[in-house]
Amino acid sequence: MSILVVGSVAFDSVETPFGKAEEVLGGSGTYFSTSASFYTNVDLVAVVGEDFPQEHVDFLKSRNIDLSGLSTAEGKTFRWSGTYGYDLNEAQTLDTQLNVFASFCPQLPESYLQAEYVFLANIDPELQLDVLKQVVRPKVVACDTMNFWIDGKRDALINTLKYVDILLINDGEVRQLADEPNMVKAARKVLAMGPKTLVVKRGEYGATMFTEHGVFSAPAYPLETVYDPTGAGDTFAGGFMGYLASVRDHSDAAMRRAIIFGSVMASFNVEAFSLERMRSLEFSEVEERYRKFQLLTEFSGID
Amino acid sequence: MSILVVGSVAFDSVETPFGKAEEVLGGSGTYFSTSASFYTNVDLVAVVGEDFPQEHVDFLKSRNIDLSGLSTAEGKTFRWSGTYGYDLNEAQTLDTQLNVFASFCPQLPESYLQAEYVFLANIDPELQLDVLKQVVRPKVVACDTMNFWIDGKRDALINTLKYVDILLINDGEVRQLADEPNMVKAARKVLAMGPKTLVVKRGEYGATMFTEHGVFSAPAYPLETVYDPTGAGDTFAGGFMGYLASVRDHSDAAMRRAIIFGSVMASFNVEAFSLERMRSLEFSEVEERYRKFQLLTEFSGID
Repeated sequence: MSILVVGSVAFDSVETPFGKAEEVLGGSGTYFSTSASFYTNVDLVAVVGEDFPQEHVDFLKSRNIDLSGLSTAEGKTFRWSGTYGYDLNEAQTLDTQLNVFASFCPQLPESYLQAEYVFLANIDPELQLDVLKQVVRPKVVACDTMNFWIDGKRDALINTLKYVDILLINDGEVRQLADEPNMVKAARKVLAMGPKTLVVKRGEYGATMFTEHGVFSAPAYPLETVYDPTGAGDTFAGGFMGYLASVRDHSDAAMRRAIIFGSVMASFNVEAFSLERMRSLEFSEVEERYRKFQLLTEFSGID
Repeated sequence: MSILVVGSVAFDSVETPFGKAEEVLGGSGTYFSTSASFYTNVDLVAVVGEDFPQEHVDFLKSRNIDLSGLSTAEGKTFRWSGTYGYDLNEAQTLDTQLNVFASFCPQLPESYLQAEYVFLANIDPELQLDVLKQVVRPKVVACDTMNFWIDGKRDALINTLKYVDILLINDGEVRQLADEPNMVKAARKVLAMGPKTLVVKRGEYGATMFTEHGVFSAPAYPLETVYDPTGAGDTFAGGFMGYLASVRDHSDAAMRRAIIFGSVMASFNVEAFSLERMRSLEFSEVEERYRKFQLLTEFSGID
């Protein structure tokens, strides 16, 4: 089962207290696709400029990511640059150059239209809906967004959310979207907007999933070497959706395992700049870290 | 098995976005004792002023807390006032009046000297050591501290830590004590200072325990009604130590259960101002929430 993802493919320039990387491969679509590719096939919808090098195309192809939906437009590829302080929790954006992304108007290739699993990465909510409409009969639709759209395109976002099953955003975004400081109350308000599942990404504090069944909380994996948190959220989403699509099971138990797989993928990704850690990652390492998550969280009952 | 605790008994004035409380019962010794009293007997070492009302003494006695070590000194009881913003994560101290606490020089009553479990709440690290020296042969010594002592009495604190088994502090304090932003590295540095166990309290993000056996992470219980986080850390410590003392088991498995009991106690305490929730709490509610923590965190393996 393949997953369709629409998002950005970009050049990132990142500086953290542990080093810097200039114009390296990045973008929400890239991180998501690469992470999900460990579990299933991925159909990528994105746009790059004429400056996008063949080596990055080759890398994505090597991960079995279908690039029929990756168009090349006249102009330059989307660029983002940012820095992180010692806590690595929040990026400070230094510069965003939309370039070819400014007029991105995705048209899905015929081969993508049957997609059952769809991930709408963090782009304009109107574009998210445009893409979703093209898919004939999606089975599971997941979506990300950010403060910029919650604030600037609130109505469009709320309209898109009506058609979304799983919303994956960070805790500040949940509070902003619901206009409610208490997370439990905020989650309930968000679930009333359409999504049946809300996954709250909390960076170094892990992730919490709210559904009609209740709440599931997972810590982040304690790491000694966090070099670059860029892409952690999309890498998480890739592991989460990739696992769900691979097992075709949307039970609460499967969703919980998917949260752990997402956490595992994100924990590897932040260990190096760009997607460097993904390039060398083996699935046996993923499984090993999944087991370490069990050791990290298990405790016995009192009965 | 009883626990000896030295800490403050105070009047707190607290304002949160959800209400305010004036000159209510507070203090680290009070919160710890009350929480631990659900599990075992507690010997309290503290000082109050002549203005401390009999009703508070009666409440502590009703919890089976031994008050032979609670002295009354000439002057007024310790007072603290603070406010919290919507995130409820950090108190802003408005005023601290040490009063009788300024010249507190605890002398343990004879009946306390055999204590096997000791909790040194957040007071001057020299006082912590003075108290510890008086105990003949403590079996498990736990300790709290804060940025004020880490910064102002670093050498004394580091000396006290040599004799401590379990240090319970928040994540900012761990980083400050170790002078290291990465939590895993910081924890290793703190464990090298003496404690065999480091419990990192993370407020609404839960708690993480570092030991020679590895790491254990527990989320906080997701609450709809958090009225007042004052005393959450000491209430956590009371549940943690109370459980350990009650089972006389210091295995990794018991310590993990103790973290959950600590989290459960803290989750109840923040539901109301001062110790109001503790006054009505039944142990059956504690056990019920322990089981909810299992539901909150459990996920199945992949093998």
